Amino acid sequence: MESLRVELGSRSYPIHIGADLIGKGELYAPYLPSGVAIVTNPIVGPLYLPRVRKALEGIKTTEIVVRDGEETKSWQTLNEVFDALLKARCGRDTLLIALGGGVIGDLAGFAAAVYQRGVPFLQVPTTLLAQVDSSVGGKTAINHPLGKNMIGAFYQPRAVISDVATLDTLPDRELRSGIAEVIKHGFALDAAFVDWLERNIGLLLKRDAAALTHAVKRSCELKARIVAADEREAGDRALLNFGHTFGHAIETGAGYGAWLHGEAVAAGMVMAAELSALMGELRKTEVSRVRELLKRAGLPVKGPALAPERMLELMAVDKKAAKGRTRFVLLESIGRAALRGDVDEALVRKAIVAAAQ
Amino acid sequence: MESLRVELGSRSYPIHIGADLIGKGELYAPYLPSGVAIVTNPIVGPLYLPRVRKALEGIKTTEIVVRDGEETKSWQTLNEVFDALLKARCGRDTLLIALGGGVIGDLAGFAAAVYQRGVPFLQVPTTLLAQVDSSVGGKTAINHPLGKNMIGAFYQPRAVISDVATLDTLPDRELRSGIAEVIKHGFALDAAFVDWLERNIGLLLKRDAAALTHAVKRSCELKARIVAADEREAGDRALLNFGHTFGHAIETGAGYGAWLHGEAVAAGMVMAAELSALMGELRKTEVSRVRELLKRAGLPVKGPALAPERMLELMAVDKKAAKGRTRFVLLESIGRAALRGDVDEALVRKAIVAAAQ
Repeated sequence: MESLRVELGSRSYPIHIGADLIGKGELYAPYLPSGVAIVTNPIVGPLYLPRVRKALEGIKTTEIVVRDGEETKSWQTLNEVFDALLKARCGRDTLLIALGGGVIGDLAGFAAAVYQRGVPFLQVPTTLLAQVDSSVGGKTAINHPLGKNMIGAFYQPRAVISDVATLDTLPDRELRSGIAEVIKHGFALDAAFVDWLERNIGLLLKRDAAALTHAVKRSCELKARIVAADEREAGDRALLNFGHTFGHAIETGAGYGAWLHGEAVAAGMVMAAELSALMGELRKTEVSRVRELLKRAGLPVKGPALAPERMLELMAVDKKAAKGRTRFVLLESIGRAALRGDVDEALVRKAIVAAAQ
Repeated sequence: MESLRVELGSRSYPIHIGADLIGKGELYAPYLPSGVAIVTNPIVGPLYLPRVRKALEGIKTTEIVVRDGEETKSWQTLNEVFDALLKARCGRDTLLIALGGGVIGDLAGFAAAVYQRGVPFLQVPTTLLAQVDSSVGGKTAINHPLGKNMIGAFYQPRAVISDVATLDTLPDRELRSGIAEVIKHGFALDAAFVDWLERNIGLLLKRDAAALTHAVKRSCELKARIVAADEREAGDRALLNFGHTFGHAIETGAGYGAWLHGEAVAAGMVMAAELSALMGELRKTEVSRVRELLKRAGLPVKGPALAPERMLELMAVDKKAAKGRTRFVLLESIGRAALRGDVDEALVRKAIVAAAQ
């Protein structure tokens, strides 16, 4: 088992990474209060609830099963969670456990942030995307018809338990979607990790436990370092959004759920790389490297059939728009992202077209 | 103008108290971003929006008018606020202003806490209850059918602007409801303030500006001191809940809105005082002093016609229940409250009956 610590003062917490962690009682023990409530979905629940239940033996446990999919990040489902918590008379010291992917983590995390003005919570991510991205950093949210993640909170878990053995049951498409965020960490922050990924992408696709453990750990380290320095996303944290301004527009434009998050981010990274080249920041060969690694990972490198004008419109409402201008995360080189607010709309349009070639 | 500071490290903020503050642009100036959104209701809006508008001249302002009353603290209204913010393309640096009473403050404060994971906000309370209680301390929340304030966040405003001139238009019953919380601060925390209240209750009921300014300031000082030491309500902050465990049960049992908050707290304080006497903590003459001052303020000293068993049931679900036991704030003497978890249910039943005599 590998462990690392996200340093956030009194809100610091550990991330445990390895195979077959999900049933280990000693990982839960430090966080167990008088009662536990587990939020999960009908896919993950039957696979892993028995092991978690066993790890929590002797503790009063409420199980809350919500629907699968992005539509679950809604008011309606959030209210179902509150109803269940209140009916089970869960008090302020109830430990909420998110058992599932990013949707479950975002939903249960936000529920934990606002239920009785905040109860402790634990992340047990069972998708690669959640293990390398959404479970780290304390971002929780639900969606609004006018935009993704519009309602939420910065709320840190007490710990994250990332069991890479749970990835064995993950559909291929979701595995690749997670790999997109792993690749993003490389391109945005760590050139050496890009080299490692170019060598080991085959092992990751084969779900090799050691390769997965390394990829999850390195991703978490890179993200945790940034989160620790910038918890509330004022500065450097925005670098983690490489590919996301375009990606969110793709997700919204295609309709929630049609594209997986990582797929949209993959196509978004190509657009952002093309934009970086048009701004004179990135060489054409480096853009090709971005495209190539994503292709080898089986990820889309072109967006859906959306007119550039529609993409621009969707990006304008995105929450990263500051003082009326959309800010972009560009690449200065492989492994070095930078935030830019002075981007000409005409170039953005060109980049979208270039990425579609 | 009187000003005081709530010390919370990087989340410290000032409270300004006085007459005719609501139209002073210089009080808003330090917090003005590219845009402002004001949440208010159809009663307060027409009275005070023109002055606030003038103070914010030249700034892009969105006005969001929600229904009046406790039912407004709902998912539905919260979503109306989000819809309006998103339609006006309000970004992360939008300043949200709560213009109204406690309902508006709780609702807009919670909206500010979770809109795009948190935007800055300003409290402009226009009821006495909000000026002395809900605007101080960063508690925000909405209600759930199974309990008051069940969903919310601890979220500090950037500043509070308490204009006592706005109390001139407050209905008598609401003024008295606010005085209940002022009296609570005295009984729970400051015997000298109780003496002052016993001498000046007549002036407060006549809305004397100087008396109101003193009462608001002293209440805020007492509350701010506790909040600064205990932001997340782990310890001393619970002392501010004197009368509230019973009071919340009264409010819920009678149906939201039938009793004003301060009215329920007034009757709840008598129950808590009787319970303190039954526990051997408080003398009978001191219980009479609690009852007498509340009576002089025109406040109810008896609860609604609810069976003691129903009251106990309602209190059990209250969020202050910890590890299955309801905790009570009792009085050891006038001006000195203490938290007790070891209260015999039979005595609680007796206290409810005694308060009804």
